[in-house]
Amino acid sequence: MNAGIINVTGYAGCELARILYQHPEINLTTVTGRSSAGENLAEVFPHLANLNLTITPELDGSVDVVFSALPHKASAEAVIPLVEQGIKTIDISADFRLKSTEEYSQWYGVDHPAPSYLNKSVYGLTEIHRQEILHSTLIANPGCYPTSAILGLAPAVSLGIISEDIIIDSKSGVSGAGRSLALTTHYSEVNENVMAYSLEGHRHLPEIVQELGGLTDTNLNITFLTHLIPMTRGILSSCYAPLKAPYDKTNTDIRELYQEFYKDSPFVQITEHPPQTKQTLGNNNCLVFPTIDKRTNRLIVISCIDNLVKGAAGMAVQNMNVMLGWPEDLALKTLAVYP
Amino acid sequence: MNAGIINVTGYAGCELARILYQHPEINLTTVTGRSSAGENLAEVFPHLANLNLTITPELDGSVDVVFSALPHKASAEAVIPLVEQGIKTIDISADFRLKSTEEYSQWYGVDHPAPSYLNKSVYGLTEIHRQEILHSTLIANPGCYPTSAILGLAPAVSLGIISEDIIIDSKSGVSGAGRSLALTTHYSEVNENVMAYSLEGHRHLPEIVQELGGLTDTNLNITFLTHLIPMTRGILSSCYAPLKAPYDKTNTDIRELYQEFYKDSPFVQITEHPPQTKQTLGNNNCLVFPTIDKRTNRLIVISCIDNLVKGAAGMAVQNMNVMLGWPEDLALKTLAVYP
Amino acid sequence: MNAGIINVTGYAGCELARILYQHPEINLTTVTGRSSAGENLAEVFPHLANLNLTITPELDGSVDVVFSALPHKASAEAVIPLVEQGIKTIDISADFRLKSTEEYSQWYGVDHPAPSYLNKSVYGLTEIHRQEILHSTLIANPGCYPTSAILGLAPAVSLGIISEDIIIDSKSGVSGAGRSLALTTHYSEVNENVMAYSLEGHRHLPEIVQELGGLTDTNLNITFLTHLIPMTRGILSSCYAPLKAPYDKTNTDIRELYQEFYKDSPFVQITEHPPQTKQTLGNNNCLVFPTIDKRTNRLIVISCIDNLVKGAAGMAVQNMNVMLGWPEDLALKTLAVYP
Amino acid sequence: MNAGIINVTGYAGCELARILYQHPEINLTTVTGRSSAGENLAEVFPHLANLNLTITPELDGSVDVVFSALPHKASAEAVIPLVEQGIKTIDISADFRLKSTEEYSQWYGVDHPAPSYLNKSVYGLTEIHRQEILHSTLIANPGCYPTSAILGLAPAVSLGIISEDIIIDSKSGVSGAGRSLALTTHYSEVNENVMAYSLEGHRHLPEIVQELGGLTDTNLNITFLTHLIPMTRGILSSCYAPLKAPYDKTNTDIRELYQEFYKDSPFVQITEHPPQTKQTLGNNNCLVFPTIDKRTNRLIVISCIDNLVKGAAGMAVQNMNVMLGWPEDLALKTLAVYP
Repeated sequence: MNAGIINVTGYAGCELARILYQHPEINLTTVTGRSSAGENLAEVFPHLANLNLTITPELDGSVDVVFSALPHKASAEAVIPLVEQGIKTIDISADFRLKSTEEYSQWYGVDHPAPSYLNKSVYGLTEIHRQEILHSTLIANPGCYPTSAILGLAPAVSLGIISEDIIIDSKSGVSGAGRSLALTTHYSEVNENVMAYSLEGHRHLPEIVQELGGLTDTNLNITFLTHLIPMTRGILSSCYAPLKAPYDKTNTDIRELYQEFYKDSPFVQITEHPPQTKQTLGNNNCLVFPTIDKRTNRLIVISCIDNLVKGAAGMAVQNMNVMLGWPEDLALKTLAVYP
Repeated sequence: MNAGIINVTGYAGCELARILYQHPEINLTTVTGRSSAGENLAEVFPHLANLNLTITPELDGSVDVVFSALPHKASAEAVIPLVEQGIKTIDISADFRLKSTEEYSQWYGVDHPAPSYLNKSVYGLTEIHRQEILHSTLIANPGCYPTSAILGLAPAVSLGIISEDIIIDSKSGVSGAGRSLALTTHYSEVNENVMAYSLEGHRHLPEIVQELGGLTDTNLNITFLTHLIPMTRGILSSCYAPLKAPYDKTNTDIRELYQEFYKDSPFVQITEHPPQTKQTLGNNNCLVFPTIDKRTNRLIVISCIDNLVKGAAGMAVQNMNVMLGWPEDLALKTLAVYP
Repeated sequence: MNAGIINVTGYAGCELARILYQHPEINLTTVTGRSSAGENLAEVFPHLANLNLTITPELDGSVDVVFSALPHKASAEAVIPLVEQGIKTIDISADFRLKSTEEYSQWYGVDHPAPSYLNKSVYGLTEIHRQEILHSTLIANPGCYPTSAILGLAPAVSLGIISEDIIIDSKSGVSGAGRSLALTTHYSEVNENVMAYSLEGHRHLPEIVQELGGLTDTNLNITFLTHLIPMTRGILSSCYAPLKAPYDKTNTDIRELYQEFYKDSPFVQITEHPPQTKQTLGNNNCLVFPTIDKRTNRLIVISCIDNLVKGAAGMAVQNMNVMLGWPEDLALKTLAVYP
Repeated sequence: MNAGIINVTGYAGCELARILYQHPEINLTTVTGRSSAGENLAEVFPHLANLNLTITPELDGSVDVVFSALPHKASAEAVIPLVEQGIKTIDISADFRLKSTEEYSQWYGVDHPAPSYLNKSVYGLTEIHRQEILHSTLIANPGCYPTSAILGLAPAVSLGIISEDIIIDSKSGVSGAGRSLALTTHYSEVNENVMAYSLEGHRHLPEIVQELGGLTDTNLNITFLTHLIPMTRGILSSCYAPLKAPYDKTNTDIRELYQEFYKDSPFVQITEHPPQTKQTLGNNNCLVFPTIDKRTNRLIVISCIDNLVKGAAGMAVQNMNVMLGWPEDLALKTLAVYP
C-alpha cells in the first residue's frame, strides 16, 4: 500500500519515515513540506537518504493511508478532504483529540475547523480504543504526555482502586518541543538544566482528563505538571493518587491487575523494577511500574516512553496497523537502542 | 582562622575547598583523605592546584573550624573528639540530622555512634534554625533534597495554608550520588535517561518529615520521590499540597507570605517565574516559586538549588559564618555561572 | 541457524543481541556471562526482555556461529576450541587483529595465546577484506576507532594521493570505554567535559598502521590521538594528510574516487556535507566526507560511525552475513534513530 | 570606577556582568541592549537579579571603561566615539583583531568601518601583548578558538622548535555560537552528536595566522578545523606539528621551556597530565600540556579554556586590569566549578 506524510520536516515526520521504511506492507511514496518543497528529503534529513524522496508542497499521487504532522488547525483543514475520499488518516496534531469544541477553543485559542468530525474520529490510544480504531477512517493520535500518563493510570482509574485526587509529574526530553527554534530549546539554555513549565496549565491536560474520565464515573481532580530535562528523547511520568480503603492490596496484587488489563497489548510492559526512559529509546514500548507508598497509602505509578515513537510516530503506525487489519506490532518489534 | 576538611576527596569536599579558598577570614590549612593520603590535593583535583595542600590521613595542626565530609557513622566518630575540644564543627554527613535514634537506626541500619550529641547538635538549615546555629558547636548540615523541599514548603506549612497531604517530586543531577563508582552513575547508563529511584523510601524522607513536622501541629502525610536526570548539578523539587479552604488567596498573596517568611534570608529568592536549576549553578541560592493550581485548589511550589553548594558545601560555609558571627553571605555572594 | 554470544553483558554484547533479534536467518539461542550466570538476560538488560534468554556460564547447546565479546586473551582462549570445530566465529576482542606477535605483546602486555591462528584469521573490515572473509572461519572484528579511521583514509592511501604524514584526531562517545566502572566514565566527571587521552599511544594505533600500511608501499607516519566527549555513542575521526603534488584534483574528483572505491560497499556513504555522528545512531553506516584544505594543500577527511554498531556489533553481523553467503546488509538496513 | 557593557544580552555580555559584579574596583553602572531595552536585566538573565540594572538602548551616564559585545561592524561603529573621548575600551567583537583590512574584508564580507584604528588598537591576548595593552585605549579581545590555539603554540613557534606544518583540531562547546537561535544550536540536533564545521575556513584562522606568524620569521602553514561537541562551555584544542631536528628534547625540556615562557602569566598553567575543559569551567585559566609523539617526532599540544571566560569575558577583564594598572588577576582568582 502507498502511504504519504504531510509535513515530514519535523521530528514526528522524520520518525514516521524511518519506521515506515522498515514496514513490509507500506511504500512511502510521497512526503510534503512547505519551506523545503522541491528539495530531496536527504537535504533536510541526511539519515533518510535511502528513501530517495523529493519533498513536494502537496501529496503527490494516490495514497491509501496518510499521516499528518501539521500543526493544529492546519492539520484538520488538510486532512478532511482526504478523509472524505475514504483515505485512512492518522492525524498527529491535536485537532481531533478533544471531543468538546469548547475545550478545544479554550486550550488552542481558535474555533475548531471541522467540528462535525469530532465524533467520527477516534482518540488513537490503541490500548484503550482498539475496537473503535479498527472501524475508523480518522484517528487522532494522542499527545506524548497523555500517552504516558493515561497508560500509567488507566488500570487504576478503571478498576476504581484509587481516589480522584491525582497528581501527574512528567519529565520530558527536549525533542517533544519539536524542531522549531526557541530559546527554551536552545542548547546552552537547556543543557545542564531542569525546569517546570506551563504551570498555568498544559494543553495536554484536557486530553488526560477526557480519557481517564471516560474510564470512571468519578469526577477526577488532576494536577498535571510538565518538566523539561536535558535529554533528547523520552518521557517519564510519576503519577500519585490515594488508594481507596481498605488497604488490603499488595504490590503483587496491583501488578497482576495491571498485567491483566494490558494482556492483549503487546507494547505495554508491566515491569518488576522502576523503568527508565532509555529502555524505550527508539522503540514503541510503554513501561509501567505501579507500587504502593506504604507510609501514606498512595499508589505511585512510573510510566515511560520514547516521546517520538510511542508518543507520536510509533503509535501512529500502530494505529495504522489496527485500521488496516494487520498485526498490531508490524514494523514495530525493534528493541530499544541501549545504551 | 584556620579551617580543616575531613575527607576532602569527594564532591562536597572539593566544593568546600573551592569556596573556602575565596573566604577572606579563613585559611584552609589541612585536608584529609584516606586512599589519597600523601598526595598533593592537585593530584586528585587539578582545579584545586592553587591551594597547594597535601592530603593527610588525619587533621594536621590546630584548626578553629572543621568540616567533615565523611560517610555517616564514620563522621560522628571523627568529629565528636573535635567537638569536645570546642572546635566549631559542621558535619556534612547524616549523623546528627535525625533527632530520633530509632529513626536513625531504621534508615541507616546502624546504631547511632553518639546519641548524647543529638540534642546538642543543630539541624543546619540556616533559614529555619539561625538562632540555634549561632550558639552551637556542632551543626548537622542538611541533605541536599531536604534543603530544596523544606525551603519550598516551610512557609506554607508554618502558616497553615496547606493541608497535610504533601507530595514532593524531586529531580536531581548525578553529582548528588557522589564520586564513588556505581552502574547508576556510569555515564553511558545515565546520559539520555531519566529514572525514579528509592521508591521504597529515600533516606532524606525522615529529615523532611522531622523538619516540616516541627513547623506545625498537624501530622504530615508526605510522599517523597527522587529522580535522577542527566545533568551533573542541581536539584529541582516540585511540591504539591491541597490549599485549605476558603480558597481566597491569590498568587500574589502567597508570594508575599513567602517573601515575608524569608525576608532576612539572603539566599532564598521568591521568583516571579518558574526557576531553573541552571540559575543557581555554582552559587548558594535557593529559588522558590509558589503558585496555585486553580483547577484543583492545590498549591504547587517549585524550589531549586545547586545540590553541591546550597545543598552541601555552600550551606556549610553559611552555617560557619553564622556560628562565627560573620555576615551570613561572606564568600557566598557569587552569581550563578550561566549558561 | 543458531547463534551464541560469549560475554553478552557488555555493550557490544547487548548490541549484538539487539541486532540478531531482528535477523531473519538467526536464532540467538545461547548467551554467556560470568558474574550474571543464572540470571535472565532481562535482569541485566531489561530492554532485551523479549529475547527470553538465561545467561549461562558456558555456551549452551550447539551453535552454527558464535560471537565473542570477551576481553583480549580470554577471548582467544575461548574461541579457538570453537574454531577447531569449524564453527564460524567472530571475535570482537583485539586478539586476532594484529598479525605480528611482537606488536601484540608490546601493546597488550601479554604473549599471544594462539599465535598459529594469526594468519588463519582475517581482519574483519569487510570493505577491505571482503573476499578473505568469505572463506574464513575466524574473523577479528576491528576496533571502533580503526573502523572510522581506516574507512576514511583507505581510498586516499590506496590511490596514492596523499603523502605519508597522516594525523588522525578522533572523538569518541563514552560507551566505547565499555560497561566497566572507572572514574573516567563516571557521569559527573565526563559530562560537560572533553579530554584527550592515551597520548603515549593508543592500542588502536597498530591496527590502523597495519591496515593502512597494507594498502601502500610507503612507510606511513601516523599520529593518532583519541578524545572522550560527553555523549554515549559515536566516533568522529578528523584525518589530515598532505596531498601529493601536482595539486590538480578538485573536491569533486576526490569524491568520485572515494565513491568508486566504495561502490560495492553498502554501508559506506560519501556525503556531500560534513557528516555528524547522530546521523549514524543505531545503524551500521560509515559516513565519509573528503575535502581539500586549499590554503595548505592538505586533504581533510571526516569519517563517522556509531561505535557500538559499525564499530562493533553491526560490523560483526555484517561479517557473519558475508561468511555465510547472505546479503551483506541482512538485518542491518535500519535507518539512524534521529534526532 | 564606572563600567558599562554594550549589548549585555548575549553570553559574553552576561559573563562580563557576572565577573564585574565581584570586581572590587568596578561599579557596573550601565548595560545596553536593543530588543530588551527598558527591561530589568533580571528579566533577560534572572541570575543577574542582584545587579539591579535596567537595560537601556544606549550607555547611560559617564563611564571610565566600556566593554562592547556587539557583532562585528556594529561594534566598531559604536566604540570609536568612546575611544575618541579617551574611554578605555575593550571590544569583544572581531573588528580590531585583524590588522589587514584586506583580510578583514575577505573574512567578514564588509569593508572595515574604521581602518585608521587598526594600528592604534592592540590584539588583547594579554600573555603575548601585555606591554602594548598597558598603554592602549582600545583592545581587540581575541576570539575564543585563537586564545586556546595561540597560547598552546606560542612557545613552540616563538622558540623555533617546530616546523611550519601545523594542524589545529579544536573542539568547542555550544555556547561559543552565542545566544542567537539556529538549527545547529537547537538542543535536539546538538545533543549526543559531534560535527566538524566551517571546513572551507573558519573566521578565527586569520587571527591565529597573524598572531603565531608574528612570533616567527617562518611562513606558517596552518590547517585549523573546528568541531561542535555536546557541552555548553569549554574549548579544547589539539595541536600537531613536526619537531625540528635534532630530536634531542625530552618532554621535561619542553615543559620547562613552556613554563619559562609563561612564568609571568598567572592564568596559563603548564599541566603534568592532559588537561580537561571541566578543570577551567567558570574561571580564567588556560591549561596547556605539550608532549612529544615519539613515534613520529611530532609535538602535540593540548590546550583548554572556558570559552566564555578566558575565551571572552574573563580575558576582557584581564585586559582591563592591565590597562588600568591593577593586578592582572583582580576579580579573576576564582577556582573552576568542578565537577
